[in-house]
Amino acid sequence: MSFDRLIDGIIKTKNPTVAGLDPKLDYIPEHVKQKAFTQFGETLEGAAEAIYAFNCALIDALCDIVPAVKPQCAYYELYGWPGVRTLHKTIAYAKSKGLFVITDGKRNDIGSTMEAYAAAYLGEVMVNHNSFEPFGADALTVNGYLGSDGINPLIPLCKSHDKGIFVLAKTSNPSSGELQDIELEGLSVYHKMGLFCEQWGRDSIGKHGYSAVGAVVGATYPGQLAELRASLKHTFFLVPAYGAQGGTAADVAAAFDQNGLGAVINSSRAIMCAYQKEGCDPLDFAGAARREAIRMRDDIMTCLTRG
Amino acid sequence: MSFDRLIDGIIKTKNPTVAGLDPKLDYIPEHVKQKAFTQFGETLEGAAEAIYAFNCALIDALCDIVPAVKPQCAYYELYGWPGVRTLHKTIAYAKSKGLFVITDGKRNDIGSTMEAYAAAYLGEVMVNHNSFEPFGADALTVNGYLGSDGINPLIPLCKSHDKGIFVLAKTSNPSSGELQDIELEGLSVYHKMGLFCEQWGRDSIGKHGYSAVGAVVGATYPGQLAELRASLKHTFFLVPAYGAQGGTAADVAAAFDQNGLGAVINSSRAIMCAYQKEGCDPLDFAGAARREAIRMRDDIMTCLTRG
Repeated sequence: MSFDRLIDGIIKTKNPTVAGLDPKLDYIPEHVKQKAFTQFGETLEGAAEAIYAFNCALIDALCDIVPAVKPQCAYYELYGWPGVRTLHKTIAYAKSKGLFVITDGKRNDIGSTMEAYAAAYLGEVMVNHNSFEPFGADALTVNGYLGSDGINPLIPLCKSHDKGIFVLAKTSNPSSGELQDIELEGLSVYHKMGLFCEQWGRDSIGKHGYSAVGAVVGATYPGQLAELRASLKHTFFLVPAYGAQGGTAADVAAAFDQNGLGAVINSSRAIMCAYQKEGCDPLDFAGAARREAIRMRDDIMTCLTRG
Repeated sequence: MSFDRLIDGIIKTKNPTVAGLDPKLDYIPEHVKQKAFTQFGETLEGAAEAIYAFNCALIDALCDIVPAVKPQCAYYELYGWPGVRTLHKTIAYAKSKGLFVITDGKRNDIGSTMEAYAAAYLGEVMVNHNSFEPFGADALTVNGYLGSDGINPLIPLCKSHDKGIFVLAKTSNPSSGELQDIELEGLSVYHKMGLFCEQWGRDSIGKHGYSAVGAVVGATYPGQLAELRASLKHTFFLVPAYGAQGGTAADVAAAFDQNGLGAVINSSRAIMCAYQKEGCDPLDFAGAARREAIRMRDDIMTCLTRG
C-alpha cells in the first residue's frame, strides 16, 4: 500500500523521474523495425515486435538510473491485440529489471466494471482454479469523473497488493481548463478532484507520508501544481509534460515537498527520441536515451537542490 | 458521419436498444466454458475462447432483433491480451452480422494520445505501407474530463469514416453526482458536458438530426435525462442501466424525442444472464437472451408509444 516502493526507488536512484514508453512506430529506429518486419512482416505483429525490442533496449539502458517507467496504453492498443500483448510483455520485462511500472490507461467506469479494470491492471483473475495476473502493473492512472464508485474498487487492491493509482486532477493539455478550472465557491473542479484523492487515500498512507492514491498534475500549469502541493499533503503527484510538451525543471519544482519528495516527473518523447535530437548513430538510440535521462535527472535535481 | 447508420438500424428493427456484451466468466454456461477449457486449458486463452463462443452465440441469436451491441472493454482486458484478441474478434463477428458496434472503453487523454486511441478504435494504423484496422468499431465511448483536446482528434475520423462517439455526461452510478452535479451559476458539470457535446458535434449532423457526438446519460437519473433531452437537440444518447441496474422503461422514455428517436438503451446482464433468471436449460442460453431482448424491446416500445 501507498507509493512507498516507488518513493524508495526514487531515493535509491536519486531521481524523481519516470520514463514514458509511448512507442509510436515513427519513434523507432529503422534497424529495429526492419528486423521485426523481416520476421513477422509489415503487420500488426511486426509492429508489436518492433515496439517490444525498442522497449527492452530502452529498459536495459535506463533501469539503473530511473526508478519507474510508464507505458501509455493508447500506443499499444494502436497496434491491436498484438500491441496489447507487447504491453503485457513490456510490463513484465520492466518489472524483471526492478522498475516500478505505471500503466497509463486513464481507466474509468461504474463500480462493477472498475472491479474488472482493477483486477486486469493491478490484481489477478481466476479462470476456474487457476489465478493469472492479466497485466501486472504496479500502478494505474484513472479518471475520477464518475466519483467514488469508480475509484473505490481499486483501493482494496492497492492495500492488499501494494499497488497505487493516479487520478487525473489538472491535466497538462491546453484545453484542460474547460472543465477542470470551473469554480464553485472558489474551489475548482481540479482542486475538488485533488481533495477527493486525499479522501480516497486516507487509509493507505505509507512511511513517507503519501497514500496509494496519487494525482496527475501537468507540468504546464506550475501555479496549480504549487497550489495543489500545498493543499494535498498525502497525495503523491505524477507530473507529465516535462520536456517535449513544454514543462521546465523550474516549472516542476513546485510539485515537490520540503524533502524533495512528493512527485515523479514523466518524460516520454524526449527520452525515446533522444537519438533523433542528438543526431547520433541510430544504432546508439538506447545510449542516447540514457544520456537524455541523466540530463533530465540532473536538470530536475539541480532545481530541487536550489529550491 | 453522425449516428445515421445506428438510427437506420433502430428504425429497421423497430428497436432502440443495444445488447451489452460484458462477458464475465461467471455469466457463461458451464458447457461453453468446458469446451473451451478442454481445448485451451483453464488459462487466459481458454477464458478468452469461452467468451468468444458465448458472444458469437448471443450475436447469432440477437442480430435480427437488435440494431447494435456494446462490448465493454474492461471484461476483455480482464483476461489479458487473449481477452483483447477476443474483443477484436467479437467486433468483427458482430459487424459481419450487420450489427452496429459501440466499443465501451471510456477512453480519454491529451490530444496526441487521443489520436492513437481514435485510430485504434475507429480508424486504421499504417505499418510501413500496409494499413490495418486495429479494432474496427463503429463508435467509442469517451470521457471528456480533459476538454476539447481529448475529443477533437476523434471528430475528423467520425466524419471521414462514418463513425460516432459517446461522451460521458451523467453516468448511471450512485456517486456520479459527486463531481457531475456540481453547479456553477445554475449549470451542472454534466449539463455543461452535454453542451460541449452539442458544440463538438455541430459539423456532423446527419439526416435524422443527430450529430456524430453522442452523450452517455444513465437510466437511473430520469429527471436529468429529460432535462438533457430537452436541451441537447442534436446529441444522440446512449442510456445504460436499464434492467439489472434498476432503470425502467418509464425511466428511459424521457431519453427519446417526439419521433421516438434520439436514444439507444443498453442492457447487458439481463440479456446475457437471461438463461439463469429464466431457469431454462443452459444449452438454450442464446434462446433465453433472445426472449429477454424481445421482452425489453416490447417493454420500451410500449412506453414510447404510450408517451
